[in-house]
Amino acid sequence: VTAREAAGGRAAPRFIGVDVGGTKVAAALVRDGQTHHRVEHPTDVANGQRLLDGIEVAVGEVIAHCGPPTGVGIGVPSQIDYASGQVIDSVNIPLAGVSLRQELGRRFRVPVYVDNDANCAALAEAFAVGARHLVMLTLGTGVGGGLVLGGSIYRGASGLGAELGHITIDADGPECPGNCPNRGCVEALCSGPALERDATELGRERPHSRLGELVREHDRVTGHQAVALARAGDPDALAVLGRLGRYLGVTIATVLNAFEPDLLVLGGGLSRAADLFLDTARREAHARALPSILARSELALACTGADAGVLGAGLLAAQEEGVAGETG
Amino acid sequence: VTAREAAGGRAAPRFIGVDVGGTKVAAALVRDGQTHHRVEHPTDVANGQRLLDGIEVAVGEVIAHCGPPTGVGIGVPSQIDYASGQVIDSVNIPLAGVSLRQELGRRFRVPVYVDNDANCAALAEAFAVGARHLVMLTLGTGVGGGLVLGGSIYRGASGLGAELGHITIDADGPECPGNCPNRGCVEALCSGPALERDATELGRERPHSRLGELVREHDRVTGHQAVALARAGDPDALAVLGRLGRYLGVTIATVLNAFEPDLLVLGGGLSRAADLFLDTARREAHARALPSILARSELALACTGADAGVLGAGLLAAQEEGVAGETG
Repeated sequence: VTAREAAGGRAAPRFIGVDVGGTKVAAALVRDGQTHHRVEHPTDVANGQRLLDGIEVAVGEVIAHCGPPTGVGIGVPSQIDYASGQVIDSVNIPLAGVSLRQELGRRFRVPVYVDNDANCAALAEAFAVGARHLVMLTLGTGVGGGLVLGGSIYRGASGLGAELGHITIDADGPECPGNCPNRGCVEALCSGPALERDATELGRERPHSRLGELVREHDRVTGHQAVALARAGDPDALAVLGRLGRYLGVTIATVLNAFEPDLLVLGGGLSRAADLFLDTARREAHARALPSILARSELALACTGADAGVLGAGLLAAQEEGVAGETG
Repeated sequence: VTAREAAGGRAAPRFIGVDVGGTKVAAALVRDGQTHHRVEHPTDVANGQRLLDGIEVAVGEVIAHCGPPTGVGIGVPSQIDYASGQVIDSVNIPLAGVSLRQELGRRFRVPVYVDNDANCAALAEAFAVGARHLVMLTLGTGVGGGLVLGGSIYRGASGLGAELGHITIDADGPECPGNCPNRGCVEALCSGPALERDATELGRERPHSRLGELVREHDRVTGHQAVALARAGDPDALAVLGRLGRYLGVTIATVLNAFEPDLLVLGGGLSRAADLFLDTARREAHARALPSILARSELALACTGADAGVLGAGLLAAQEEGVAGETG
């Protein structure tokens, strides 16, 4: 039978995924594990209403190409109460308190599912490789966590869990640069801001180094500068990235021991510099994780790239509507 | 319909739970969320065969009272490959490498399910309070972790996960006293041996203190002595337990952020001294966990007591045989 026949003669089910980021809103039809008719617009962060309008425009453009959807999945960089689809907390985009599921359900007149963007990315990766148990860490300005356990997203009692960026790995470590009261959490040690802080501090300590020159000129070292210097072989920049790698290894060992996933995936902008810290991270993880678990879990970089959020959001809607099964 | 009728005229399903500890083997009929006809014998740790014989004797005694079971659940303080029921690693009892599920299935001629004892305890607690998402930490000579996520045990890809005793909370902390290559993990900071180490070290530093007297006399301070001194108001012993409480608080915050459980439960022998460290732990957790999650999760001491292991093992067998549903 064709998909059309299986659906009882009506059109085959059709899902649209939306990825709402701090800088852009992307939407696409998600079919056969791929995105189609992808559109992308800058995020209008003036206020919640404008942001909702922007999502509606992007989804409308996809619909113009592919027709009305069966359901829409939306990934946002926010804490979501999953059942109601209400945004509990949102730092980078103005959605805190917005009943996103209800608002967009009213506009699209089909079921809408809203989830944290790292959860969506984890689901995309799990479908891509056929993993039943997968943990994702997205390393960037913040550190996000996504869990696919037993083939579907695990998000805690109400949707706020999987905040792996805020598990503590160094009890007396530096304060979290994000909107979190913790210190020594993963985001405080393995994020873009952590890299900038460490590179800037080392530059201050060693004023005649390359990092020191940058601090004298610009009063700080950016993450991009630290990565570029490390790529050029600067020993201080390499040391700062090595420190990040060591803490990432501590995190990896912790995640393996807690979840014993088939696969642990690293994504996010900072993972593009993984060549500068992944070996160190692996060594540290190997020295710490329980050997029996280490032997059964894999570590890899994300493979769905910039599509992860859109793809995962569409797959979430399909899974919730009973069209996509569990991963793996 | 009665249970007997529901079972098609045959006897109602009947499950036996077994808790294999380092010192004793306990078995009982598990019915209506309670244990019946409980028997208990010292664990024969001479070798694996003798241990298996001991389990068979205990289960046989329960069967003599209640008749043949539908299934048997067994909790062991070991790492289990869940599908095969083979023991991968076992420190305190001689079962490493034993195909426990197969061996006991042959002896009992009914389905046998073998799981880690902390997983079983978590399931018992989840059924007792009706929690759908529950995390258990058992604090004792070792620190065990049990996860009930979405109403059933989560144990990782093959059964080795949920090792919450070996997540790192202090990257450069002391070496784990257990069979784990990590340092600064929960077991290295919040276990009986950690308490003894810290009390003994402080006694060495302060030879004229009460802890110092114990070190002079016995070369070390036991956990029981440290707890007794703290109960009597000794400031050094209280400081050592406060340190343990602080690290426990770091752990609690980490677990809340990662899982957003309905309930986080503390059990194990050391939890009987919770009056000496739980307030400190709560304060530390409140200062670190994400506020949105903190507002939705509860922390409590275990309520199923010494029965947790037997009860959870029996409930596991019932759940696997489709007789008990999900928790909560």
